[in-house]
Amino acid sequence: MLEFRVVAVDPETKARAGELVTPHGVVETPVFMPVGTQATVKTLAPSDLLEIDARIILSNAYHLYLRPGTEIIREAGGLHRFMGWDRAILTDSGGFQVFSLARLNRVTEDGLEFQSHLDGSRHFMSPEHNVAIQRDIGADIIMALDECVAYPAERSYAERSHELTLRWARRALDAWRADPREQSLFGIVQGATYEDLRRESAAALAEMEFPGYAVGGLAVGEPKGAMREMVDASVEALPEERPRYFMGQGFPEDIIASVVQGIDMFDCVMPTRNARKGSVFTSRGKLVVKNASCALDNGPMDPDCSCYACRHFSRGYIRHLFAAEEILGQRLATLHSVTFYVNMMKQMRSAIVEGTFGNWRSEFLSKYEGGGGSGGETDTRSEGR
Amino acid sequence: MLEFRVVAVDPETKARAGELVTPHGVVETPVFMPVGTQATVKTLAPSDLLEIDARIILSNAYHLYLRPGTEIIREAGGLHRFMGWDRAILTDSGGFQVFSLARLNRVTEDGLEFQSHLDGSRHFMSPEHNVAIQRDIGADIIMALDECVAYPAERSYAERSHELTLRWARRALDAWRADPREQSLFGIVQGATYEDLRRESAAALAEMEFPGYAVGGLAVGEPKGAMREMVDASVEALPEERPRYFMGQGFPEDIIASVVQGIDMFDCVMPTRNARKGSVFTSRGKLVVKNASCALDNGPMDPDCSCYACRHFSRGYIRHLFAAEEILGQRLATLHSVTFYVNMMKQMRSAIVEGTFGNWRSEFLSKYEGGGGSGGETDTRSEGR
Repeated sequence: MLEFRVVAVDPETKARAGELVTPHGVVETPVFMPVGTQATVKTLAPSDLLEIDARIILSNAYHLYLRPGTEIIREAGGLHRFMGWDRAILTDSGGFQVFSLARLNRVTEDGLEFQSHLDGSRHFMSPEHNVAIQRDIGADIIMALDECVAYPAERSYAERSHELTLRWARRALDAWRADPREQSLFGIVQGATYEDLRRESAAALAEMEFPGYAVGGLAVGEPKGAMREMVDASVEALPEERPRYFMGQGFPEDIIASVVQGIDMFDCVMPTRNARKGSVFTSRGKLVVKNASCALDNGPMDPDCSCYACRHFSRGYIRHLFAAEEILGQRLATLHSVTFYVNMMKQMRSAIVEGTFGNWRSEFLSKYEGGGGSGGETDTRSEGR
Repeated sequence: MLEFRVVAVDPETKARAGELVTPHGVVETPVFMPVGTQATVKTLAPSDLLEIDARIILSNAYHLYLRPGTEIIREAGGLHRFMGWDRAILTDSGGFQVFSLARLNRVTEDGLEFQSHLDGSRHFMSPEHNVAIQRDIGADIIMALDECVAYPAERSYAERSHELTLRWARRALDAWRADPREQSLFGIVQGATYEDLRRESAAALAEMEFPGYAVGGLAVGEPKGAMREMVDASVEALPEERPRYFMGQGFPEDIIASVVQGIDMFDCVMPTRNARKGSVFTSRGKLVVKNASCALDNGPMDPDCSCYACRHFSRGYIRHLFAAEEILGQRLATLHSVTFYVNMMKQMRSAIVEGTFGNWRSEFLSKYEGGGGSGGETDTRSEGR
């Protein structure tokens, strides 16, 4: 069983600091996992991620299965060796991508029939097959295949779907237990925006005793109030002593709110995708660094940041790189935004450990929101390119 | 006057090892200058270039004048500060780009009338104006504006053009001498493929006493024999004690042949451009790393290379990055090819200093050409994107 220790809990909220012990190092939680969908965190090298001190990244079994193909990764000695990343990796099952990116032909009791978004080739994926794929890829943490429900979903469909996801979770668990290697499988709570279904889903998964649990199917466009209620309902039915992962949750203010609700792990493509489009996160809120207003600005993207990009380059230079369509612009913006997220999580964790989480949160948010940082959207999870 | 010392000469050829003392550090010659047209060596950060130990890079006054604009660079404290590069920089005048990339409207005695390739805006550039632009940019070495003649060129046109280039060189020299700052101006030998014109051009420039000299208008499609003859004719009329720069010369075998002829400095977009397209230079010749044949190859791009890319990543992984259109592929390929060039020049220089240049050259070429490395083309100079 994956070792997970809760080392401190905020006395006023459910926020907690933990340690996740993986075969590729200890991950301190709460943690944000930069997304490396295709075996690379877009624009960054592993050396950058080491410098940022990211401890775990996320990749995606759907994408890797299609390209370069699971055998190539297996023959290269697994994903860690293939991509030159010696720290922890979590792979998503890719269920979400089958629903959002591939052409989904049929959902049967047995699994998913779909066509590749790359070449239209036909594929079938069962929960067992999906575990085998993730076994070949070799991440430290793997996810059970689930059915992903769009928002809004009819009650009857949500019910049928969450029950199917539970049966698949059991099958994935059995397949994983038959040959667990050094991997740990997480189950995913579904149930759309129905509180009772969320509770039912979480309780049923908890009974199966997964090494960890994720909350799935949220941050897909539903109102924030509903999102928070679903997280509460899910978390309450999950065991205290296991890690909890909110899939696809990404805005700083939402991550903080979810930590308050007891979530330990996060991922989202949004910070890296926005960075590639010239928009970065800073301690003063969002900054559209590619805008003309930055052209004469000799200051760094974020005066509070000590990443390589903020130490050496001005907003004006990075703006020029975007205007000239130079790749280095995307790279420096990504480097900064990932640094911002990693450091935000570190500070948050220290505050929880030191018992100053409440203060930290108000100070962080007042600076961040005072600077014009915004959220609004909740649909941040798609990992298409 | 720019300090330049010849520290060793190969007894059997004109190959020489030198030191070019710039306000931003000593550059050991022969040297290859990675091209950073738009104030960045595409895909690389200055930290990468430091790790590679590049001592000087090239940028381009035409591109920077149009975007971000000279004033922005001046206000940022000059190009070194703007792009975060504290070592030496050479800027090309951009004359070649006016001829190859912009819409050239008229060449008059006074200068060039052209329209921007970016937005069609109209511009006029005289030799004096061009020096002023390069002064604002602030590179250590700047180039005189010249008229660039395509291959093949009629004798009468080549004659008129080279005479115009000489008059422009004189005007650029006067403009530079009026306010040289810490910059050094190089004159450019023209004369198309006519040996007597090359001699005349070089002799006339030598008489003007430039801090350094370039051979221009070659490597633009002419036969290699003609190219070599023109280099010989130019070099013979240039002073021994000044640096000689062959503009746009780029294949390893051609660089070595030109060093044999007494050239000290090189630049070319080809190695970096090819790298971004998935083709790299290695000690065993060219490698098209994006090819499917690399998919299952767990070896490095170049077994003799110790760059970050070759230390950490397989051909199979880099091939995957290209197939998946991941920017990191272009970045790792570029990093390797620039490393290959910088190291080739270093080894060559050591061999000249140690009196083993002849041996080094045969060994290098037999390994390189035996591995399938090729050249063939001579048109490698265009700096369009």
